[in-house]
Amino acid sequence: MSHPIDAILDRIDAGQGRALDRLMELLRIPSISTDPAHADDCETAADWLVAELTHLGFDASKRATPGHPMVVAHGGAGARHVLFYGHYDVQPVDPRRLWNRDPFDPAIDQTPRGAVIRARGASDDKGQLMTFLEACRAWKDETGALPCRISVLFEGEEESGSPSLVPFLEANREELKAEIALICDTGLHDDRIPAIVTTLRGLLGEELTIEGPDRDLHSGQYGGPAMNPARVLTRILGRLHDDQGRVQVPGFYDGVGELPDDVKAGWDDLGFSTEAFLGEVGLSHAAGERGRSGLEMLWSRPTAEINGIWSGYTGKGFKTVLPSKAHAKVSFRLVGGQDPLRLREAFRDWVIAQMPPDCHVTFQGHGAGPASAMSVDGPVFAAAQAALTEEWGQQATFVGGGGSIPIAGYFQSVLGMESLLTGFAKDDDQIHSPNEKYDVESFRKGIRSWARILGRLAD
Amino acid sequence: MSHPIDAILDRIDAGQGRALDRLMELLRIPSISTDPAHADDCETAADWLVAELTHLGFDASKRATPGHPMVVAHGGAGARHVLFYGHYDVQPVDPRRLWNRDPFDPAIDQTPRGAVIRARGASDDKGQLMTFLEACRAWKDETGALPCRISVLFEGEEESGSPSLVPFLEANREELKAEIALICDTGLHDDRIPAIVTTLRGLLGEELTIEGPDRDLHSGQYGGPAMNPARVLTRILGRLHDDQGRVQVPGFYDGVGELPDDVKAGWDDLGFSTEAFLGEVGLSHAAGERGRSGLEMLWSRPTAEINGIWSGYTGKGFKTVLPSKAHAKVSFRLVGGQDPLRLREAFRDWVIAQMPPDCHVTFQGHGAGPASAMSVDGPVFAAAQAALTEEWGQQATFVGGGGSIPIAGYFQSVLGMESLLTGFAKDDDQIHSPNEKYDVESFRKGIRSWARILGRLAD
Repeated sequence: MSHPIDAILDRIDAGQGRALDRLMELLRIPSISTDPAHADDCETAADWLVAELTHLGFDASKRATPGHPMVVAHGGAGARHVLFYGHYDVQPVDPRRLWNRDPFDPAIDQTPRGAVIRARGASDDKGQLMTFLEACRAWKDETGALPCRISVLFEGEEESGSPSLVPFLEANREELKAEIALICDTGLHDDRIPAIVTTLRGLLGEELTIEGPDRDLHSGQYGGPAMNPARVLTRILGRLHDDQGRVQVPGFYDGVGELPDDVKAGWDDLGFSTEAFLGEVGLSHAAGERGRSGLEMLWSRPTAEINGIWSGYTGKGFKTVLPSKAHAKVSFRLVGGQDPLRLREAFRDWVIAQMPPDCHVTFQGHGAGPASAMSVDGPVFAAAQAALTEEWGQQATFVGGGGSIPIAGYFQSVLGMESLLTGFAKDDDQIHSPNEKYDVESFRKGIRSWARILGRLAD
Repeated sequence: MSHPIDAILDRIDAGQGRALDRLMELLRIPSISTDPAHADDCETAADWLVAELTHLGFDASKRATPGHPMVVAHGGAGARHVLFYGHYDVQPVDPRRLWNRDPFDPAIDQTPRGAVIRARGASDDKGQLMTFLEACRAWKDETGALPCRISVLFEGEEESGSPSLVPFLEANREELKAEIALICDTGLHDDRIPAIVTTLRGLLGEELTIEGPDRDLHSGQYGGPAMNPARVLTRILGRLHDDQGRVQVPGFYDGVGELPDDVKAGWDDLGFSTEAFLGEVGLSHAAGERGRSGLEMLWSRPTAEINGIWSGYTGKGFKTVLPSKAHAKVSFRLVGGQDPLRLREAFRDWVIAQMPPDCHVTFQGHGAGPASAMSVDGPVFAAAQAALTEEWGQQATFVGGGGSIPIAGYFQSVLGMESLLTGFAKDDDQIHSPNEKYDVESFRKGIRSWARILGRLAD
């Protein structure tokens, strides 16, 4: 099948307005997966995607899980079979007051750096997944068909640890297995250079609750003899890192290897400026392990972070209370061969060993995904690299990823399938933060990038 | 003036029902002083007290302050002049869901330990201050007059650090100075023994906010190189105590003396059981400074407590956020000659010295009151001790107090006036906690106690 790529690209540019309208529709659905109050919205987003895919000629359906539904679709024909993955769920929006507008009432903002689509999920991941659907639309409208055999998997629990993902992959191995997975949930390098992510950090999430007295106490009446769980919690979490920035959980670095020299050299060639990267968010000093470069801290070193902590009186004014409970949410970014489940036990044992008399700790797990590394040989990687270089006028590069896209690891372990991760987000997209945005340029050139990649795959 | 005390006590018993109704009225006013949303309720409570005092023949008025109003009243005649102090403001009620009923819809609950008045403020301090007003009422109704010259000062900011108190005392020295202050904001010893508190701990409240990145960050995108303020806060607060339970702020123990042998002996005679005391709230181990008795930890040793801490995502589920800010409310109970304002600076310096690059800390003070010790010679202490012993059938004892009633220190420093602190609260009143209560017996015998004390003062 011939494919006049230029005509397809022109069609994409001409259809920008309508493509943006469709993205806005999806962004208006507040599909926050971590908040049970938004479960219906997740269903609505899944239904919306099924309708879109059906309209594009896919055989699409919503699949129930114990959590939020999956969307699965199949379309096109040919020897080459790719599986595109994205997620339709989004992060919570708090603190709401820091948003300049309703996070679920998207709009195009003109900024000094160009036009942006402002809404929760604009970049992570609704804007990105729509770049692929719009590329498929342009192919279908221009040529009457999809350029190759394409399966689609959209998840609704990516922001809450993907609890249903592995069982779903295991239950649908045959249907979902393809030559390679295409994942659009990453960013450009340095906001300019098209990047293919070849390593990803894993993620382990833990919530702990320390209980002391059986009720809140008056700090004058009991302060002194009564143990304060907030004191215990801060003491433990205050010891999570040593003075060198290394995590103190025993065995934490088991399976963490040193970077191969050639990879390290390649990263050095990227000319990454840690100062500039941190300067974007009002910081200036690399706070990770001493003696590591900024890119190592982001791409090849594991971390421990306190994502949330709360105890006692947090309202206005003051309350001389000695709280009965203290809570924290902690997460670990994992690399290399770190075993998430073994580390979960190591962390829990480490905390339990520090419990004083009269204090009791309970844990809740929030996801445990291993790190992953792609083998980048093979025609799809080459085709994608060439197509991205063509579209962006910069040599597409292989980079590491600081984030966690556990699906890539699961595609390897469950389906024996490599993943090609590329995306068009920028460092200042403020994903997971107030005022998340996605550049209109990222959206347009993202669609064009996928159109080109699909074209080369169809050759 | 003769005073048939028995007739007055009979009148008190006969009038129990109406006295409880009046207390309930006051308890229905949600006068939470720390919450600006309840400012009008504080005004309402003050107005209610002015009306009550006026009805009892006092010349009563509400006095404006920069914060919540004071209530001042004068009544009676005679050579002896006492000033009664109490506070009409109450603690916040959160966590609201742990209350068995609306905290501001009081009711009498029958419990295995007897009837209790259940409501926020029932014990601290509305129930206690009403014992004095009801004693005055009985005297007036039975004899037509108050037994001696009585002034009253009710404050509405005791639970929020009494910011307006010292300026008000200084501006009204002559009007408020009396022979001695009577303060009803303390408890029975061991729920049985009438107690006069002769030492009180001071209180220093501090709120700190540590700021790092200029926005919440994605822990995958920035985790590693970006400093996390929650990590800094837990590291600092985790070092507040050493392994011996001693506070690590430099100079913290300056002015903290050892207990005189006779006082220590007197405390030992009380037969206080730390295990039983802690057992009431589900604890078993004394968590204060090693080598100190439970009573020392409560009455003669200073403390540092985390009253509240919060940062990042604290909702349901999980959010891999790297928070931009971390907050804590911390308070210190002070003893002996510890200087609250000097310690505030010492604490702030100690925190600031631990700030890493890229983190900035700001502080908000929440009250700073010194510890106080009464000189217990003088006729009023003797009269009160005798009257209390008579009413409760147990030798009234001089004890220390773990709480902070800064007013006693201010009466000494500003008005040169000693304070006699006695009260009828019990350890299980759950003041500052959900389901606060005041025993009906405390209320009744409290009224009778004040009637007897006033009788002896009138002699």
